Amino acid sequence: MTRLWDKGQPLDERVLRYTAGEDHALDNRLVKYDVAASIAHAEMLNACGLLSPQDLKSIRDALTAIGEAHARGEWLVKLEHEDGQTALENLLTEKLGATGGRLHAGRSRNDQVLAALRLYMREIVEELRAGVGAVADALDQLIRREGATPLPGYTHTQQAMPSSVVLWAGGYAAELRDDAEGLRMTQRRIAKNPLGSAAGYGTPNLPVSREETRTRLGFAVNQEPVTAVQLSRGKAEAQLLFEIALVMQDVGRLASDLILFYSHEFAYVTLPAQFTTGSSIMPQKRNPDVFELIRGHSATAQACLAETLAITSKLTSGYHRDLQLLKAPLFRGIDLCLATLAILPPALDGVHFNKERIALDPSIHAAAEANLLVAKEGIPFRDAYRRIAEKYRK
Amino acid sequence: MTRLWDKGQPLDERVLRYTAGEDHALDNRLVKYDVAASIAHAEMLNACGLLSPQDLKSIRDALTAIGEAHARGEWLVKLEHEDGQTALENLLTEKLGATGGRLHAGRSRNDQVLAALRLYMREIVEELRAGVGAVADALDQLIRREGATPLPGYTHTQQAMPSSVVLWAGGYAAELRDDAEGLRMTQRRIAKNPLGSAAGYGTPNLPVSREETRTRLGFAVNQEPVTAVQLSRGKAEAQLLFEIALVMQDVGRLASDLILFYSHEFAYVTLPAQFTTGSSIMPQKRNPDVFELIRGHSATAQACLAETLAITSKLTSGYHRDLQLLKAPLFRGIDLCLATLAILPPALDGVHFNKERIALDPSIHAAAEANLLVAKEGIPFRDAYRRIAEKYRK
Amino acid sequence: MTRLWDKGQPLDERVLRYTAGEDHALDNRLVKYDVAASIAHAEMLNACGLLSPQDLKSIRDALTAIGEAHARGEWLVKLEHEDGQTALENLLTEKLGATGGRLHAGRSRNDQVLAALRLYMREIVEELRAGVGAVADALDQLIRREGATPLPGYTHTQQAMPSSVVLWAGGYAAELRDDAEGLRMTQRRIAKNPLGSAAGYGTPNLPVSREETRTRLGFAVNQEPVTAVQLSRGKAEAQLLFEIALVMQDVGRLASDLILFYSHEFAYVTLPAQFTTGSSIMPQKRNPDVFELIRGHSATAQACLAETLAITSKLTSGYHRDLQLLKAPLFRGIDLCLATLAILPPALDGVHFNKERIALDPSIHAAAEANLLVAKEGIPFRDAYRRIAEKYRK
Amino acid sequence: MTRLWDKGQPLDERVLRYTAGEDHALDNRLVKYDVAASIAHAEMLNACGLLSPQDLKSIRDALTAIGEAHARGEWLVKLEHEDGQTALENLLTEKLGATGGRLHAGRSRNDQVLAALRLYMREIVEELRAGVGAVADALDQLIRREGATPLPGYTHTQQAMPSSVVLWAGGYAAELRDDAEGLRMTQRRIAKNPLGSAAGYGTPNLPVSREETRTRLGFAVNQEPVTAVQLSRGKAEAQLLFEIALVMQDVGRLASDLILFYSHEFAYVTLPAQFTTGSSIMPQKRNPDVFELIRGHSATAQACLAETLAITSKLTSGYHRDLQLLKAPLFRGIDLCLATLAILPPALDGVHFNKERIALDPSIHAAAEANLLVAKEGIPFRDAYRRIAEKYRK
Repeated sequence: MTRLWDKGQPLDERVLRYTAGEDHALDNRLVKYDVAASIAHAEMLNACGLLSPQDLKSIRDALTAIGEAHARGEWLVKLEHEDGQTALENLLTEKLGATGGRLHAGRSRNDQVLAALRLYMREIVEELRAGVGAVADALDQLIRREGATPLPGYTHTQQAMPSSVVLWAGGYAAELRDDAEGLRMTQRRIAKNPLGSAAGYGTPNLPVSREETRTRLGFAVNQEPVTAVQLSRGKAEAQLLFEIALVMQDVGRLASDLILFYSHEFAYVTLPAQFTTGSSIMPQKRNPDVFELIRGHSATAQACLAETLAITSKLTSGYHRDLQLLKAPLFRGIDLCLATLAILPPALDGVHFNKERIALDPSIHAAAEANLLVAKEGIPFRDAYRRIAEKYRK
Repeated sequence: MTRLWDKGQPLDERVLRYTAGEDHALDNRLVKYDVAASIAHAEMLNACGLLSPQDLKSIRDALTAIGEAHARGEWLVKLEHEDGQTALENLLTEKLGATGGRLHAGRSRNDQVLAALRLYMREIVEELRAGVGAVADALDQLIRREGATPLPGYTHTQQAMPSSVVLWAGGYAAELRDDAEGLRMTQRRIAKNPLGSAAGYGTPNLPVSREETRTRLGFAVNQEPVTAVQLSRGKAEAQLLFEIALVMQDVGRLASDLILFYSHEFAYVTLPAQFTTGSSIMPQKRNPDVFELIRGHSATAQACLAETLAITSKLTSGYHRDLQLLKAPLFRGIDLCLATLAILPPALDGVHFNKERIALDPSIHAAAEANLLVAKEGIPFRDAYRRIAEKYRK
Repeated sequence: MTRLWDKGQPLDERVLRYTAGEDHALDNRLVKYDVAASIAHAEMLNACGLLSPQDLKSIRDALTAIGEAHARGEWLVKLEHEDGQTALENLLTEKLGATGGRLHAGRSRNDQVLAALRLYMREIVEELRAGVGAVADALDQLIRREGATPLPGYTHTQQAMPSSVVLWAGGYAAELRDDAEGLRMTQRRIAKNPLGSAAGYGTPNLPVSREETRTRLGFAVNQEPVTAVQLSRGKAEAQLLFEIALVMQDVGRLASDLILFYSHEFAYVTLPAQFTTGSSIMPQKRNPDVFELIRGHSATAQACLAETLAITSKLTSGYHRDLQLLKAPLFRGIDLCLATLAILPPALDGVHFNKERIALDPSIHAAAEANLLVAKEGIPFRDAYRRIAEKYRK
Repeated sequence: MTRLWDKGQPLDERVLRYTAGEDHALDNRLVKYDVAASIAHAEMLNACGLLSPQDLKSIRDALTAIGEAHARGEWLVKLEHEDGQTALENLLTEKLGATGGRLHAGRSRNDQVLAALRLYMREIVEELRAGVGAVADALDQLIRREGATPLPGYTHTQQAMPSSVVLWAGGYAAELRDDAEGLRMTQRRIAKNPLGSAAGYGTPNLPVSREETRTRLGFAVNQEPVTAVQLSRGKAEAQLLFEIALVMQDVGRLASDLILFYSHEFAYVTLPAQFTTGSSIMPQKRNPDVFELIRGHSATAQACLAETLAITSKLTSGYHRDLQLLKAPLFRGIDLCLATLAILPPALDGVHFNKERIALDPSIHAAAEANLLVAKEGIPFRDAYRRIAEKYRK
């Protein structure tokens, strides 16, 4: 296996292991997008007269075959490839010989990996939005099933005013749909074409067309000037992780509510047996582990965001190898969010409110009573408040 | 001074101090917005038949006078007020007697403080955007003055390819304008009317109109259902702090570049004397403190974001007193960002690139030479790369 | 007011404001320690023959007077001083003329401020430990009052096995005492004498004695080599904030328990009226605000730690102005911890467990029953577990 | 495969996947320690008359064989095991039948996993200390090789005062040894025996001896009361990650220095070819990737700490499934630190300072000159400072 920058010197094995890190494993999910961006790049080279139609055809066919083989699990990016970009160029050159070496004209790994990453993020944002939507829909269904069941509305974990399942679940559904809209807006930073910026300073002496790759790949704009591309590393990633953190926060708080409602003392809800787990020592237990892990994962999501912001922090401009480390927290955050969004709809389908157990303290109507005094007697609210307070003090 | 919820029991002084915290100090910046939202609320009460035209006039006039007196510095929210909302109601009642007590009908401190906070954020976002724009403009001016000066383009803190002041400063200007756009998008979460949600469960028995306050205050939508309002606490704040963190990160990295360029060994830039400071012990020193603090403040901005996300994390639904703590990191993040944005334009005006000191290593043209081989001889890039590498090895 | 490094150039007012930041306000708490360290420094200069006995006496008397005046509130470090070190030297020179200028021989603000900071931290750690101890003692008293009251022991927020107030409160008391021990261990990093390192590279040509200041100020060791001093900035601070974060986490979890126990549905505890607060709209409410704020402050404490670690992160060696920013999160973390520790003993004194409300579900004894089968019948635990599980399934 | 708590109900496959998470993969590193703790537990049961000598022998032999087989890679904890504890009990029962089911008497997964984790941490702390020591030793060797080479001492990234390789490297070596001492102190929280606390509330009806397992496993104390055990979850982990964060911060700053010194403009050091890597597009480049990744990993280490603190934050007392999530950031932080410590000694062995390139600006001696005036002429330092400043202004 040759490294793209191999010039003959020995490379310490430990150095390869330390520098490649977990990149090879992480890069597998980018292969599909790297293939697509590489084909667009080859087409651009052809359109600019830098690649013959025959070479374009060979490269396109070979890349397509390599991508399909990867999708079928026939090869994986491995440690000895160093990273996915190197794997792709090596496989291409194995197939095509010197022609494979024509593909890297006018690009660097810096813009190549960023193009693949943005195509990946573009797609995953839609998956995340769909997942968030499905959770909101599951809450809507819960409302259809049990919306009318009364619930105490809490402030300070104290019964405060009358509420209901429709208000409780509807609040979460609304916030999740707000999160989905926040996710949608992350596409703005994602939709910038990095190709043509190469290592971050353009491609002197090579008349590439950024417009060709932009339209082929569906980016909204070319990121200009070329120096902005590497400066922007981590920003779209961070915004996506920020919105993921909000999603995880919202479902984490939903989980906190359900864990509370599932306690023996509240007993407001039952959970389906297959969504609870047991204890190794206490035979009677059915624990709401799924919801506890959802709550716990909200901490992980925030850490992914913090890590991402910290990686790029204080760096001088231009590419640094530190930026490679952005992938791990990004993928970790995405994966835990997708897994959480997938488990929630079936889990919510099993939530049932125990109408007969839910007891509203009579004092919960105090504010409404004060309101009634205002509406009926026209007295100032503060006076009504004091009268009702007096009543409940007794 | 009476507390809104005073029902006669003694309140331990230490408890007041601990629970009020620094709220009184922080709330001063919200008084203006609380006055505006309170007037809109009074007008709504009047429109709904819950406040007579005469009482509306009294309340509007009194609130206006109270707000103007605050703007003139004639009174401040103090510890004994507990918070700004209490201060306002107390001052109003002092002026108007029982009529002042009519204002709190159909609202709670929960939606009141949130309305003021969102009006404040709406305005401050525009200030932040203007500040970011001014820094970008200062970079444009630097480009006009010295854009043509060549600079090495760096990757891995190594000279990589030719760049220039226009590319260097232009990259930052572009990213800052991207940040300004990110800031603009925070208005989506800010533009939701919380009024009418009261403590988080609406206003039973009081026929208030959320549409009346919404149009009066220029909110885009009413936040529905009422339970979503308190669930959303911290989300607009966090998004604003997230975008502030990106701004601070970008200017922090700009500062890192300038600190490096200002080193004796680079000596690429001179800084104006009034933007450097001295040493208490080394008489020869002129230090780039302003830029070091900008870099350091990027750490603070990230901590403000982390704190905000952590405060709301894992809480069950409904208002909790924890939410009061959101103001401190929000205001801290906003203030340091505004101060940083204000100092940057004059600081950048004084940056001068020492053309004669900036030395590009000849090898910096290696990629361009390889490109030329590709363009002229039509050989694969990888072969051109190896030929040029061979040349520079010698 | 002259700045220590003033060499005649104008200093932009905005620059002063930005660079001084909130330093002047923060530095007031360091004046006492700066005076002590300055006197020790003067005594060392005298012992090394660099200050006459007469000058030593003048400086010592003047510093003592300045410190006492500050303690009486007669002067404050203000913005125009830039920082506490400058204030001190200026006041000294006002009193003594040129003699005041002798004090700065063999030191820099870099080691001066660090000496004051470490003396401050040394003292505050003991205050924090005492505060933690007082909370643990309050828990012990609660145990003495109500230790025998049975409580369900929870896992997964589910009743799991029998517990009691003694076990519940005793767990927290033990962990708090563990935190106090953790706090004590922070003294190791604090107890290193920075004096004599000056700007970070020693005091060439001046034969100062680090041992003289070390013994006078009670530091355990001289920090060696001189370059380690500035490299270590932020580490003792971070360790202290880390231990504060653990304290706040423990009391935050204690608060979570009490908020839960105080809910209408649990009703396991009553809280004293003066430690609850009311609602502006719901006249019946008594809210556990103190405990909610304690819980919320655990988020703030973690942010203080994160900020501190981020400030020093990635900096090259040697002093940077960024380090000035360490004081704000350090003091914020200390202050909120001390305030929280002060409010807890009286708050805990008022906690009363409602014995008659606390209901243990019969199944809570299932593990004990399985254990009994093992002990009596000698069957494997897993078989006993299955038998008891079968019993509770019915 | 049977789950420990299996009582016959179906378990949704997705729930298993979500709840087990990556536990199975992570738990492999704990098998060795779980075997050791399980044998100690069996010996204790025997000593307490709860396990016959014959059963003890069977269990000890079987566990030993299972552990050895795992060490030889013959089996791995897999998803269907759910976790390592279940895998162990299942394998034991496969080998021994009902006798295997005797082992779980008097313990829960809660104390079992914690015992294994603490034994693992105890060992890994020593590995980390050795790794830190090896880096400090490599710095000592660099000092022996090139200590006398002069270097500018920097403050504010400006040449400030004369320094040298011995002072530069010695500062880092001292701080690393301070970190090693910090690591050593994490053993205090690790050395507490959790066994006997079971699910967190002890083992009613089973007369277990915590002292037996404590002495066998070498814990310093039994953690008392039993409720403190689960409350303490995450605290030893967090302290270890805190000290790891300091280590990574120190080596990250060392890396920052070397990246700067390796720049074309400084050119103070050369790095060995095998510790630099190339560019995919710029044939001339040799990049200091290893040091960039070390710097970048300091961000990851801080995120691991933040995640750990956030996971336990605000939880009520008693075990929660959230605590399972502590392992991932703990292991991540440990692994990146060990890998970084392993790569540093060979990397430092290749660092060579280019004596002839290192240029100290003459003004670097200004403070020493001022000191000389003080020492020779006896004038106040501030006057000497002004005279030297005047000289350099010209």
